[in-house]
This record gives sequence, structure tokens and C-alpha cells, in this order.
Amino acid sequence: MANSKYEYVKSFEVEDKLMPSTWIVLRIDGRHFHQFSDKHEFKKPNDERALKLMNACAEAMFEEFPDLVFSYGVSDEYSFVFKKTTEFYNRRSSSITVSFFTSVYVMKWKDFFPDKDLKSIPSFDARTVCYPSTKIVRDYLAWRQVDCHINNQYNTCFWKLIESRKTKSETQDRLKGTQTQDKNEILFQLGVNYSDLPAIFRKGSCVFKDKVNSCFVSSLKNHILHFLYRSISYPFLHMHDDVLQSNKCFVAFYTPVEEIMKYNENGQPVKRSRNKVITDHCDIMGDKFWQEHASILKDE
Amino acid sequence: MANSKYEYVKSFEVEDKLMPSTWIVLRIDGRHFHQFSDKHEFKKPNDERALKLMNACAEAMFEEFPDLVFSYGVSDEYSFVFKKTTEFYNRRSSSITVSFFTSVYVMKWKDFFPDKDLKSIPSFDARTVCYPSTKIVRDYLAWRQVDCHINNQYNTCFWKLIESRKTKSETQDRLKGTQTQDKNEILFQLGVNYSDLPAIFRKGSCVFKDKVNSCFVSSLKNHILHFLYRSISYPFLHMHDDVLQSNKCFVAFYTPVEEIMKYNENGQPVKRSRNKVITDHCDIMGDKFWQEHASILKDE
Amino acid sequence: MANSKYEYVKSFEVEDKLMPSTWIVLRIDGRHFHQFSDKHEFKKPNDERALKLMNACAEAMFEEFPDLVFSYGVSDEYSFVFKKTTEFYNRRSSSITVSFFTSVYVMKWKDFFPDKDLKSIPSFDARTVCYPSTKIVRDYLAWRQVDCHINNQYNTCFWKLIESRKTKSETQDRLKGTQTQDKNEILFQLGVNYSDLPAIFRKGSCVFKDKVNSCFVSSLKNHILHFLYRSISYPFLHMHDDVLQSNKCFVAFYTPVEEIMKYNENGQPVKRSRNKVITDHCDIMGDKFWQEHASILKDE
Amino acid sequence: MANSKYEYVKSFEVEDKLMPSTWIVLRIDGRHFHQFSDKHEFKKPNDERALKLMNACAEAMFEEFPDLVFSYGVSDEYSFVFKKTTEFYNRRSSSITVSFFTSVYVMKWKDFFPDKDLKSIPSFDARTVCYPSTKIVRDYLAWRQVDCHINNQYNTCFWKLIESRKTKSETQDRLKGTQTQDKNEILFQLGVNYSDLPAIFRKGSCVFKDKVNSCFVSSLKNHILHFLYRSISYPFLHMHDDVLQSNKCFVAFYTPVEEIMKYNENGQPVKRSRNKVITDHCDIMGDKFWQEHASILKDE
Repeated sequence: MANSKYEYVKSFEVEDKLMPSTWIVLRIDGRHFHQFSDKHEFKKPNDERALKLMNACAEAMFEEFPDLVFSYGVSDEYSFVFKKTTEFYNRRSSSITVSFFTSVYVMKWKDFFPDKDLKSIPSFDARTVCYPSTKIVRDYLAWRQVDCHINNQYNTCFWKLIESRKTKSETQDRLKGTQTQDKNEILFQLGVNYSDLPAIFRKGSCVFKDKVNSCFVSSLKNHILHFLYRSISYPFLHMHDDVLQSNKCFVAFYTPVEEIMKYNENGQPVKRSRNKVITDHCDIMGDKFWQEHASILKDE
Repeated sequence: MANSKYEYVKSFEVEDKLMPSTWIVLRIDGRHFHQFSDKHEFKKPNDERALKLMNACAEAMFEEFPDLVFSYGVSDEYSFVFKKTTEFYNRRSSSITVSFFTSVYVMKWKDFFPDKDLKSIPSFDARTVCYPSTKIVRDYLAWRQVDCHINNQYNTCFWKLIESRKTKSETQDRLKGTQTQDKNEILFQLGVNYSDLPAIFRKGSCVFKDKVNSCFVSSLKNHILHFLYRSISYPFLHMHDDVLQSNKCFVAFYTPVEEIMKYNENGQPVKRSRNKVITDHCDIMGDKFWQEHASILKDE
Repeated sequence: MANSKYEYVKSFEVEDKLMPSTWIVLRIDGRHFHQFSDKHEFKKPNDERALKLMNACAEAMFEEFPDLVFSYGVSDEYSFVFKKTTEFYNRRSSSITVSFFTSVYVMKWKDFFPDKDLKSIPSFDARTVCYPSTKIVRDYLAWRQVDCHINNQYNTCFWKLIESRKTKSETQDRLKGTQTQDKNEILFQLGVNYSDLPAIFRKGSCVFKDKVNSCFVSSLKNHILHFLYRSISYPFLHMHDDVLQSNKCFVAFYTPVEEIMKYNENGQPVKRSRNKVITDHCDIMGDKFWQEHASILKDE
Repeated sequence: MANSKYEYVKSFEVEDKLMPSTWIVLRIDGRHFHQFSDKHEFKKPNDERALKLMNACAEAMFEEFPDLVFSYGVSDEYSFVFKKTTEFYNRRSSSITVSFFTSVYVMKWKDFFPDKDLKSIPSFDARTVCYPSTKIVRDYLAWRQVDCHINNQYNTCFWKLIESRKTKSETQDRLKGTQTQDKNEILFQLGVNYSDLPAIFRKGSCVFKDKVNSCFVSSLKNHILHFLYRSISYPFLHMHDDVLQSNKCFVAFYTPVEEIMKYNENGQPVKRSRNKVITDHCDIMGDKFWQEHASILKDE
């Protein structure tokens, strides 16, 4: 039986190929995550375990989609940058990636919340945008990090005021119209030095591929921290971050890529530049990070 | 700190609103499901538990998205029809729905495969198409059901020949160029009456909302079958379907919507027309189904 | 010399095919026509010759593009409806049609303005919209005709008040917030019965294809008017319209399609239903016109 | 009377804004120009007057649309490059520009063909493409110029063979599979040195804005040629081009922008860099042209 009689319905499909030679940015957002975080009693203003679950999903994305070069996450949102030349999935948009991200979120939930069952169905929205130049991609990422800062500072103030027995409406009145400096002042009066908060809260999270080589010396300290990190079990996670927080930019988590050591004919180890997926909490607004990781957004 | 300096990056976002007053069809497809089904040892040519997990995801979609009116699933693919007037999610496309579907797939896995752990990360692709008329939506659904028939008949032949100790290449040679009639003949010689196979394999699955009232009398037999269905535990599922298969169109599964019985002042029960989500394995190519369920694709 | 090295640039082209099985409406608008009409001293509030030039362009469109079924013009704007099944130009959008329209506008200028040279370069914008149902196309056309009425009534009032030696700002104040009834009252006081104005001003213009047969009897009166119309030379055009204006719906212009008369074996003339391009000034908001011309928007 | 009841039809309009910060290239193509050129007896293989009419249209485009930076024409096709930052017409696509081009084509016809009336209605198709980088725009233009070369060489051979009393099919057979070198050989045997042909045929035409200053010294020779060009009336156009053709790159036409000479307080003329629209027949495939006119495609 031929199916040709009905095949005309395919002519209604619209090609949704994205413009070639542009950076593709995919932004994933939790759907109804206000409710979701209430139902699962996420800590206010930031739940570190929830953030780390998001980071784990991002790391899994890098394992799965080789054309990802950078990602940035804050709260229940994650932005992924695909390289300009990617032909992944014929440059069509977002379904596969958001589906994969969601799958990992559910599958890894128990790793991060061993004490909590999923009580509702988490889902994510996604939006794909193309950017024609590296400068604009950097501005995009800066836009998200500024947002992270604005929201985190406001939320930190808000919940500290609530803790100090203000009502919700008193708190909202107190914060109305305040600037960065005012909010830092409020926090200071409540005994909080904003810049002492964990970088993961203040800066958000970056997951990206980097050359292992270039990282080797500079991140020795990070390796030790990483060792400590791995040694400390989950109940102590918070303490651990208090220890780590003084490092503006540290490696929080390494994906389990094994080192492959080769030796040349003289028995000397061959140094190879290899990509490793790194999760970090860096300042991505200034030039420093991008100069140190020039290969990430390089024009091919 | 204002974020206005970077907000220009939003101007690169493209509005992806779908044409108003058209039926929106979302088709979800398993990604790399050939590998996925091998890894999880799905039965050939059809794995009933895997199909029922897909159906359970579709049913959850109906609970979550009130503007869905019909859906049709076959193999690792599911098509969802949203009503013409839906403003769900501003008529933007597919991310939320495919993300939700994926979430349910992972969360319900253990209900259908209590004996198997997820060994890889399932994910789904999705595509959204608009259809301007009811006739074309019906042709779309017919297209999918014809595909179901063609593939299922081929695969059933293929695996029966393999069972009868043919090699893969012998089997492929045997089937090359055969028509529907030829394949039925081959199956007959191997002791299989194609029309005796379970409807879920031959017809695929329909999940849709229907008025409970209109269903009440006509599906009395179905209610009894449903009772039996519920009574029989999972290990006996297969036998159960052998019993049920003689009914061309039967209710396989009811979502747990409780009956609400009201009484009028005379103590008589008030009949109300209520939508119930129904899973079925009907012929959706002919007119009969659509005449009996005229409200599903009615033009508002 | 092969050109393949550069051909990748074609991959940046975006397919702009419109949705199949939908009515395609093309709306052409004069660009900077406020200036253009000042420069060419178009009469206020309506310049009949300018309107008839627009109509002539529309008629030429029907000669050129066989899939056009209806068009409606008002002021410097013209909307063209292509039939649902058209594959004209692969359902791509507007360039060819607006280019053709513009070409005719310049070429026919002298036919309508023999006393005026083109002093600036006329150009038109165009926009293409798809409509999935006949009802919505009719609503679209009603929308344009309501606009015609609103604008024409306002402009007629405005220029009559100016004629009566009001200043521009007095006139604007006088009209602010007035309703249809108020404006009719103002016109009445200035000696104008709005419904006596030429239909081309009040109703705009429709150009469409119609069966000659169905038209034959009913438009006999029109044929006579048409004969008169043709007999009267341009200087008397205005008077001519005063004569004609009492007919709500009359044929203003026939395209020069010759009658082809055939005879059957008994010497009787064979009546054939043939499409003729007709320009008219009908009410297209109510059902009457569409019932009398049911073939125009019929669903194939 | 409010029009709100029908305004919902506007919701069917699709936003067609092009991606910001990309070069917009508009390519205009003659529709049915094979017929059109036959009907108006254009010379084979190139009609210089027809090409110059196309160039005049392009020049008028530069007068009208200030965001144009470069254009390239060959045969009945013209490509226009808008600067990356243009907000012209809200970055919507092509209607206005192709309408304007068409208008000029008809209006200027008599300037170039004083001896011929327009016998049919010329119209143009248009397509808009965005390019994210300068390199790709240059590749686009190179692609068109290679096409010009390939077609012109083939057509020149073809018509020379026809002139030498070959039949059409003999000519087609003779040319089948020939390479650039083979065709040059054929032409040489027929007494034609391909590189002696007018640049307008071999290279196509570029119309662009350039700084007058930077041009001043280098194009002194061109100014003299330009003077000659202006002095020679149309009947002698062909001879004139024979004289000019030895200059690979010469100024064929200056738009009538008057020189504005200012003097400083010491009576010295103030040199100002001013944009002038220039028509030329340059090699735009190599780097030389773009280095000499670096401002044209500079990234802002």
C-alpha cells in the first residue's frame, strides 16, 4: 500500500534552519519553576543543590553535543553557545537539546536530592537565537550575568530582611528604588558582606570546554580544591563552599574524563592539548576571562 | 546597575508565533531510538511495554495541556493535535511540550520497566506543523497510520522469517518488492493471521478527550473489559491483550479521573457531559471514527 | 572556471514559501504618497483620475496573474487575493507582483494624467498575509472597506469645512470625537448628502473575475451605462459619475476582452461561462455580494 | 463606526524583520527578460543601452536609499548591499526597493531607447539575503562576477559562431564541455581577443559610494575620460566604449552631484571627504579593489 496519497501533508512543514556562520545560543528556562521550587522546598534565595543539578545537566550536554563551546547558568535558566560552523541537527532549533537536558534533570535528581522524591513533573522552555559576531555573543552572556547579579542581590536582601522578622510588604517597601550600593549597605547592616557569598550565587555558573594543557599549571590549586571537594560528602557541601568561596574563580566540578598518558620513544610523557569540560563561576563580563580562554569564541 | 546596555541582544530574537486559526500538530520522535531500544532489549518487532510507556506520556500531556484534542502514536513517535484557537504558550513552538513529554518518559520508566534501569539518556526531537483545515489534519493522521501499517507489516514479516531461521540477507531478499497481499501470504505460511495481531501493533494508539456521556452506553462492554484490564496485573499483560484483540476498537486504559455523581432534587443522577482522556487503537483513516467523535476536530 | 567555490553563499538564502492551501492576500501601499499626491496636485479629498489609474493597474494584474480571484482598492492601497491552491511563483511572496503593479502605474500614468508629467518616482510597499479560511478573507476585506468609509467620511468633512473657510485647526477641533452620525450631520449642514457621493469614493473599488454568463441579464443596465461611459470623453468624467452615482453597484469599466460567439449545429448561440475582469464599487461587507458571486471565494 | 471587530485579521501578519547587524543583500532579477529582450530587439550577446539603463536604475537607488553601500549588476540582474546597521524600512524585505527600481526602469526607458517604445510591461523579482560577515558578502559578490564571466564568455562564443554561419545546434555541440581556455581559443580563431571586449560586458557594473577625496588624484585620468564621455552624444556611444575599453577600471558615469568648494580663512580650498555615487566596471574578486575602497564594507 503506497502512502503517496497523503504525503502532500509534508508540504506544510516549514524549514527552520538557522542562518549559517552565526553563533547559535540556546536558552533553557524552567517552566513554572516558582511552584516547582516551592513544592520541593528549595532554599531561599539560592538552593545550591538545585544549582548543581542544573550544572550537571549542562555538563552532560557537553558530553553529548560536541559543537557546544560555552554555557552559562543562573537560577533555573541555562544558555548554551554552539560554535558558528556547527551543522548539528542541520542547524534546526531547540527540541532535541531541551529534551536531552530535561531527561538528565530527572535522571540525576536523586544524585542531588537523595532525600527528596520528585513530586511534580519538571519541564523546560527553550529559545534559540543566532548572533552574527563574537562581540554580540559576549554581550549576550554579559546580559545574563548582569541579570544574575541584579536578581541575586535583590533576593539576598529580601530574604535577609524576612529573616530579620520584617513582613513581606515591609521588605518590598524597604527595597523599592534601591541601588546596588544601597542594597550592599542593607546587607552590611544585617551582618552580610555581599562579596563573601559563594561565587556560584553571585556569578552564576559557566560550563565550557578548555584545553587541559593551558589549564595545567594555573589550576594546580584548583586540583587540590577539587580533591577536597570530591572527598567531602554531600552533608558538608555548605561548609565546603565556605572554604572555597574566597577563590573568585575555581573549578567546582570535573566531568569524569580519564587522563590518557602517552609516552614518546624516549619514555617522556607526550603533552597533548585536550578539551576538558570545566564548570566554573567566573566573571565573564570583562576581557580577562576571554583573553585567558581565547579558543572558546575564536572565529574559525 | 541597569542592564540596558546589553539589552539590545534581545533584538536578535525571532518571533516564532504560528499562524492563528490553524490546527497545530506537534510530532515527537525518539532520537537514536534504534540504539536505545537495543540497549534496553526492546522486543522485536514491537515492545508492548515501550508502546504503553509512550501512551502514558501522551496521557500525561492531555492532563497538562488543556488545548490538546487528539494524539496518535506509533513506535517511538507521537503526534499531538492542538485545537485551532489555542493560544497555549502564545502559539510558539515545541520546546515546552517535548520537554514535558521527556520528563514523563523518564519518570514513568520504572512503572513500565520495573526490571530494567535506564542505561542511556532518552531524548526526543519535535517538529511543529500548522494545518489550515480539518480535512488536512485528518489526512495527516491517516498518513501516520498508513505508515504504521506499512512498517508493522514489514517488520512482522521480517522477524517471523528470522525466527524461522532465515538469515537477515535472505529475509531482506524475500521481502524485496512484496506488496501487502504478498506479505500477508508469507505470514499465513508461517502460521500468522495478520489481523489477529494486537490492535496496538496494527493500528497504533490514539489518545484523545471525549465526552463521557456519549461514550456511556456504547462503551459498556469496554467498561467491563477495562475492569478486567485493571484487575490483571502486569505479568499477564500479554495474555490480556490476546483476549482483547478481537475487539477492533477497545479502551485500553483510563486515566484516573474519578466519576463525579450528582443528584437532582428528585434524587435522580444528573448526567453531565465531561471530557475524559481515552486511549484507544482505532481506525482513524475512515469516516466512522470521526463521525462518532465529531467534537474532536469540530471547527469552532 | 567553476563557480563552486563561492556557491556556499546560496546556503544563506531563506525559503520564504507561504503555507499551502491558504488564501494569499497581497496588500500594496503607495510609499510617501502624501508627498506624491501634493506634488502632482491630486484633488482633495479624492482624486478620481488617481483612483482610476490604481484600478487600471489592478485590472492589468488580473490579465497577468491568472490565480488572482479578487482585489479591493482604496486611496493609494490595493489588496489582491490569490486563490488557495495557487502555486504562482512557488507561493513566494510579493516582489514580482508589486514590481509589475509599479510598472503599469508608470506606463499608464499618461493615459489618466495626459496633462501632467511624472515629477517624482512613484513606488509601492507590499505585504503578503495568508488566511486559512474564507471567513477570515472576507473579514479582511470588510476591514479594508470599513477603513475606506471611516477615512473617506472624515476627509470629506475635513475638506468641506476647509472650503467653508474654516482653518485647519478649527476643522480638526470640530471633528475631534465625532461619530459617523455627527459627521453626516456636519455634511448635511454644508449641503452634502454623503450617500450621494460617488460610490468609488464611498465604497472603494473591487476588481475581480466573474462568469460572463451569470452577469448577462442582471447587468444589462450596466452594459448601457458602460456604453455611455465609453462614449463620454475624459473631460466629462466627473459629470458622468454624477449620472452614474445613483446606482449603488455599477460596472465602471470593462477590460477589453472581446466576446466570442459560437453557434451550435442548429445555429443557436452556445452560451459559455467565461471569466471577465470586472471593476465595481460594491458593498463587500454584507453577504449579498458574496452570495451573488459565490465562485470567487469558493473552496476548491 | 469602530473597525475593531475586524482588526483581528492583522494578527495573521508575520513579522519579516531581518537579523540585525548583518549585511542585507537584495538581488533584483528581470522577470521573463528573455522574451522582453527579444521583443525589444536587444543586441546579442550584450545590449549596452540595456545595461546602462540598469546602471541608471542602480544609481537612482543610491540617491534614494542612503544606507546602500555597494551594488553589482550583470545582464538583467542587480545586487544591492545595505550596510549592516541599516534600520531602513525596519529591516523588512524587498518590496519598496524593487518597486522603486522598476519605476525608474520605466521612467528612464526613453533616455536610453529614444527610438523604441515599451512594448510589454517590464517587471523584476527580488530576493533578500543576510550575510553575517564582510568576508561572506565579498564571496557573494565574487560569485556574481564569476557568473558574469562564465555567461559572457559562453554567450560571446555562441553568437560569434552563429555569426560565422554555424547553426544553433552546431554551435551548442561545438561549445559542449569546453573550458575557459578552449573558449578563448575559439574566439581567437574568429578574430576576437576576449580581453579587448568592453569591461562592462566582461566585468559587469559596480555602483557604489566613494569618498571624493580619496578618488581625486588617482582618478584624474578617469575625469578626463569622463569629460570625453559627456562630450560624446549617444549615437557615438559604441565608438566611445571602444576608446575606453583599454582601461580596465574606468568611471563610466557620474551622478550629477555638484562640487561644493569652500575656502578657509587663508583663502585655501578646504578639502572635504564627500560621498559620491560612482559607476565602474572593476574586478571585485581580488583584494585590490576592496583595499582601495576600504570604507565600503568596513565594520562599524
